[in-house]
Amino acid sequence: MLPTFLRFPFAFAGLITLISLLPIPALAARYPSYGTLRTTKSGGVLNVVINNTYSTINLFDMHVQSDLANLVETLQANDTDVRVVVFSSANKEFFIGHIDVEYFLPGYESVLPLYDTGFPDMLFPVALLWNITQLPQATIAVIEGRTRGIGNEFLMSCDMRFASTSPSVLISQLETSLGVNPGAGGGMYLARLIGRGLAFEYVLSSADVDARTAARVGWVNAAFGTPRELHAHVRALAARIAMFPAAGIIATKTGINAATRLSREEIVNAAQNVIAALLPTPPVQGAFRRFIHVTRNQSIGKMELDYGAEVGRLFE
Amino acid sequence: MLPTFLRFPFAFAGLITLISLLPIPALAARYPSYGTLRTTKSGGVLNVVINNTYSTINLFDMHVQSDLANLVETLQANDTDVRVVVFSSANKEFFIGHIDVEYFLPGYESVLPLYDTGFPDMLFPVALLWNITQLPQATIAVIEGRTRGIGNEFLMSCDMRFASTSPSVLISQLETSLGVNPGAGGGMYLARLIGRGLAFEYVLSSADVDARTAARVGWVNAAFGTPRELHAHVRALAARIAMFPAAGIIATKTGINAATRLSREEIVNAAQNVIAALLPTPPVQGAFRRFIHVTRNQSIGKMELDYGAEVGRLFE
Amino acid sequence: MLPTFLRFPFAFAGLITLISLLPIPALAARYPSYGTLRTTKSGGVLNVVINNTYSTINLFDMHVQSDLANLVETLQANDTDVRVVVFSSANKEFFIGHIDVEYFLPGYESVLPLYDTGFPDMLFPVALLWNITQLPQATIAVIEGRTRGIGNEFLMSCDMRFASTSPSVLISQLETSLGVNPGAGGGMYLARLIGRGLAFEYVLSSADVDARTAARVGWVNAAFGTPRELHAHVRALAARIAMFPAAGIIATKTGINAATRLSREEIVNAAQNVIAALLPTPPVQGAFRRFIHVTRNQSIGKMELDYGAEVGRLFE
Repeated sequence: MLPTFLRFPFAFAGLITLISLLPIPALAARYPSYGTLRTTKSGGVLNVVINNTYSTINLFDMHVQSDLANLVETLQANDTDVRVVVFSSANKEFFIGHIDVEYFLPGYESVLPLYDTGFPDMLFPVALLWNITQLPQATIAVIEGRTRGIGNEFLMSCDMRFASTSPSVLISQLETSLGVNPGAGGGMYLARLIGRGLAFEYVLSSADVDARTAARVGWVNAAFGTPRELHAHVRALAARIAMFPAAGIIATKTGINAATRLSREEIVNAAQNVIAALLPTPPVQGAFRRFIHVTRNQSIGKMELDYGAEVGRLFE
Repeated sequence: MLPTFLRFPFAFAGLITLISLLPIPALAARYPSYGTLRTTKSGGVLNVVINNTYSTINLFDMHVQSDLANLVETLQANDTDVRVVVFSSANKEFFIGHIDVEYFLPGYESVLPLYDTGFPDMLFPVALLWNITQLPQATIAVIEGRTRGIGNEFLMSCDMRFASTSPSVLISQLETSLGVNPGAGGGMYLARLIGRGLAFEYVLSSADVDARTAARVGWVNAAFGTPRELHAHVRALAARIAMFPAAGIIATKTGINAATRLSREEIVNAAQNVIAALLPTPPVQGAFRRFIHVTRNQSIGKMELDYGAEVGRLFE
Repeated sequence: MLPTFLRFPFAFAGLITLISLLPIPALAARYPSYGTLRTTKSGGVLNVVINNTYSTINLFDMHVQSDLANLVETLQANDTDVRVVVFSSANKEFFIGHIDVEYFLPGYESVLPLYDTGFPDMLFPVALLWNITQLPQATIAVIEGRTRGIGNEFLMSCDMRFASTSPSVLISQLETSLGVNPGAGGGMYLARLIGRGLAFEYVLSSADVDARTAARVGWVNAAFGTPRELHAHVRALAARIAMFPAAGIIATKTGINAATRLSREEIVNAAQNVIAALLPTPPVQGAFRRFIHVTRNQSIGKMELDYGAEVGRLFE
């Protein structure tokens, strides 16, 4: 018989929690190719390689968003077979370039299916990143290459982040330079992660931050001198976590999310609705057109490679 | 006559606060031996040495919990004679091993008095640690030896933490490996202290973290190369704080607690009730029995000394 | 035509936000001399030099408070001409000494105008610092010299902080030593910035913290070996941010403030009303008189230069 204090009322008080925590027995889900996402499963670890072949800069466009939403939907189904998800990029110059700013200009209409995120008050990419923060799996980003704007917001929505010290790694929350704010709460997560002072510096200045600096201030968990060391560290960490019971991973994430994650209301009110009000305004529409011009349609080139240094060209 | 702005209404608005802050004049409390706690008083500093002679690993069992609760009750009585409490361990291999997992297995019934914590919705150790966070004294942990599970949750409930760089110091929040979560909110406090990213890494992987790493990321305030330096630093710091008026210490703690501490609701809902729902389940009961087996009844040996490296034995 | 998802309902939901974000077209404001504040404007950057010629320690007295309130009122008027405000000090030994403790002693009545801060439940300096946190401009503090008590609370109310590693830079939240707490929430902001553990250590011990330590733990963004490097870094950073649209700066600040700033209620209840209750008590009145005595009326000398080391003289 269990000790008295475990019988009642705490076990009872936790019943609803328990139900939500217990994995639903299910056939192992299939993780097919998703077009822009290549997946391979190794034990309890699902490796997801972001590979947007429609773009030279791994643009976070409708293809990537649609495929990610599809993947997230599968992972949400409490599949206990996968306990850790590792995101990396096939493009070693760009982990995730940034969002496709064409979205915000007149005439753009996606023809891709975008799934139901479950949150009608959230824009699609905002809801997608929110859903990633509460996956029942541990999530790890492996950063080789530039990661700007929503790319950093994607990093923030993962549980952990590791980077290579390659000069190709530049992380930036660049929205301020375009007259808007990080609309999915990336600047807000960053401020909780590295402190208000440094977040104001990096976000307001739309700076490119290298991996060593990012590791020093806590933006990424650690930076590694070679891709080999980076991948070896993440592989070992993922395999270790995947050894543990799924319920423990979920339960631990529940607590850390409750203690540090932004609430949906904070994201909607202080990030999403702020940018939504600014996007249709003529200055922002002008800035986005200028951005597309100087980046040569968001393709690889001096501007996309070195945005932090070249940002002044927006204002020439 | 006081300046106008001090007369009204602010002094009035703060009246209830004032009453709670003003130390109650009282005879100096007695700090007897508490069985597993050795206490000595030096000026305004109370030194408390955790010395669980019933255990080779300074297990956080009913003896230690009962004695701590007794001590906390005395300290809560606004005793202005003690302004700083310093916790250290007699066992230099284990500051606090971890909780006695026998608690959670059938048939365990403690025969020790456990005092009234004042919070009937909280399990006893959870309420005990909560009460430590709001003692009217400054609290400092001096870490020599391993500190895992509720040992780290105890560290989190102290105001400050200092460690020796001895290889004996290994800090770990190990619950995930056993299929549960830190039930008193230790992982949640840690995430606010060192950031969401590193907390996910260390807690989800149930890693053993050494003192230098802990100091670098902010888990402990500082790490010292020798026990002599460690104790000298804490002695000087404690004596300095003890020189200041008790009301200032209490008032400052009020603010920092309001800004950074978890709320009781957060601990109860996102930590305690989550673990309470998992503890009675067969997988967790099995994991705890396996844990007792591989640790040879939670006694000193390879598994307890080096849990972080040996954790795989749980799954053999 | 804009993409569907930008038309409705998000743009509508953000309408009130939009109105508050859009700068009000106005004639460029005048930034006159403010007595204790020297201002010069360079592009979109307003440089403000704190120069309290009534004091040898740049005391945060009624003159400085009154002038700052006047400046803040001008900056609040959504003046898009100024996008970044940089605060530095003419006195290289004292950025801001501390508050004028004469305020809290009988008989003090200011004859200066203090403006309406808009928050009748907040004491004047508390409301002043609150208003600084929500200026529509990016704010940067450039620290050369000692900065204690409300001096550090002023630092906390700025978005970013940079320091020289000169031995003249000593930062301290010294209130605990006088039997009170930081009344405008400075200790609380600090705890969110550098973590609960280090904040308890520095604030409870009323320590003087040097610039290198402050940079290492995140109290300041960075420390520079020479004033030349310090000012060059801030000048470049300020000029870069000032290049970006005002609406983006405001929008980004909205998010980071929502994620990390204290709420007005937290400041009022856990800082201001706590100190307000203690200030009129005889022990605190006695401590403040003793402070004025040992600092020779809050003037430059051993005690003000080296408070952290000399604090024991308060208790002789």
